[in-house]
Amino acid sequence: MSDNRPIGVFDSGVGGTTVLRSLLSAVNKESFIYLGDTARLPYGSKSPETIRRYSEQCVRYLRKREVKAVVIACNSASSQMLENEFEGIPIYNVIEPGAKLALSISQTGHIGVLGTRATVQSHAYEKALKSLSPSIKITTQVCPLFVPLAEEGLDGDPITNLIAYRYIGPLLQSDIDTLILGCTHYPLLRQSIERVTTQRISLVDSGDAIAQLLKADISNGDKIKPSGLERGSLRILCTDMSENFVSQCRKILSPIVPASFESVDIGSLAP
Amino acid sequence: MSDNRPIGVFDSGVGGTTVLRSLLSAVNKESFIYLGDTARLPYGSKSPETIRRYSEQCVRYLRKREVKAVVIACNSASSQMLENEFEGIPIYNVIEPGAKLALSISQTGHIGVLGTRATVQSHAYEKALKSLSPSIKITTQVCPLFVPLAEEGLDGDPITNLIAYRYIGPLLQSDIDTLILGCTHYPLLRQSIERVTTQRISLVDSGDAIAQLLKADISNGDKIKPSGLERGSLRILCTDMSENFVSQCRKILSPIVPASFESVDIGSLAP
Repeated sequence: MSDNRPIGVFDSGVGGTTVLRSLLSAVNKESFIYLGDTARLPYGSKSPETIRRYSEQCVRYLRKREVKAVVIACNSASSQMLENEFEGIPIYNVIEPGAKLALSISQTGHIGVLGTRATVQSHAYEKALKSLSPSIKITTQVCPLFVPLAEEGLDGDPITNLIAYRYIGPLLQSDIDTLILGCTHYPLLRQSIERVTTQRISLVDSGDAIAQLLKADISNGDKIKPSGLERGSLRILCTDMSENFVSQCRKILSPIVPASFESVDIGSLAP
Repeated sequence: MSDNRPIGVFDSGVGGTTVLRSLLSAVNKESFIYLGDTARLPYGSKSPETIRRYSEQCVRYLRKREVKAVVIACNSASSQMLENEFEGIPIYNVIEPGAKLALSISQTGHIGVLGTRATVQSHAYEKALKSLSPSIKITTQVCPLFVPLAEEGLDGDPITNLIAYRYIGPLLQSDIDTLILGCTHYPLLRQSIERVTTQRISLVDSGDAIAQLLKADISNGDKIKPSGLERGSLRILCTDMSENFVSQCRKILSPIVPASFESVDIGSLAP
């Protein structure tokens, strides 16, 4: 049995398109609707209650657009919505798949986590990692300037390199061999981050991790049924349209071209 | 005749407290209600339509709290709300007073303006300066990383100095002698900015400019009547409460201590 409805994906802004890119390449028969809540971005500096409220509004809006599942392509939102289902819709967050992938890579048993203030303060990665492997050692680092640097497209810039050294440098004094990029914006700064971590440390991109999980679940057909389409489509929605958003989406997703960009109002869905 | 109602002041976040600080020192018999729309900050990267909608909601909310006037302590919001009155409430923006002050200082007739993407793209300062002095020469510079650096409290940090050199350095090649800090966050980076501009360039802080205008209007008693109180009070509201917001407000306003901090919901006031 197949299900041709699209899969919903949301983030506060453009960061989640790094996850979308991985999803599109893993399950190319599926259709996707991506929602960027650009009118209220960023989430990572806001309170847990506000992030939870915004996330619920995004899921409800995507449900209205008849999606068969929702992927939360934002670590700050994932950390406040860890359930597997919300109001009847299967939910995927990026925290658990990222934690699993990191554990499968680490040899030293010491994992680093980079994140926004909201994600780090939620301790979501620590809880996920410890529940899977109680003896694991974890060191976290808040990187508040990484999101604006990624939004400005400054990967590899001397300023970004300097900030990456300041955030990540101290972690290199320990025996960390695996580093979770705990924000979907951070893969957009990969060049600057790798300059500091070198080949000694494996970077875990939660987009890759969630894509593998979704692919397995679709083959399995239990939580989510496969599409019967030859090839899926992609529509992009946002709550505040800007040239910057459209051009960044196009750049990150290239060579895949979204079928449409649409500005939507999701605020009225507040309970 | 006196009017003891408070004056409303709003910004997307903590930046407008630099304006509030100037207002409190200029007219200390007046009471103030400050609103930081922290659930949706920042404004400066968002579209004109969204900034206008958020600004209207802030003014309507302050009207509900019975203010006698509203000061828009945010350049991005000011650039989208330049009228002198909105739904019966006298409105003050920071653009015109800043432009006037800059013109009164400049000897070379060449003024620089630093701002967010929204403020610079609105051309609000250029229009205000040109309407007062058609022959004035203006050079603008977008500084998108200044707001997050100010929110992180990184004034004087080597990273901020480096970014300030990148943004402001090119302006020094010209005969600019006056530089408008066209975002209320920027006075929080004064040390790093002055490192680049040195004493050769006068910095114009729109907080000082609007404070002088408000003081004159209150003495005059025409647009706005003076309070009859011996000493005014100060209440702080925000749409997303965080420790960071409270501690930054306290630090910037010190030695003045707000009577209260309160979390409010303004979204339901949308038309």
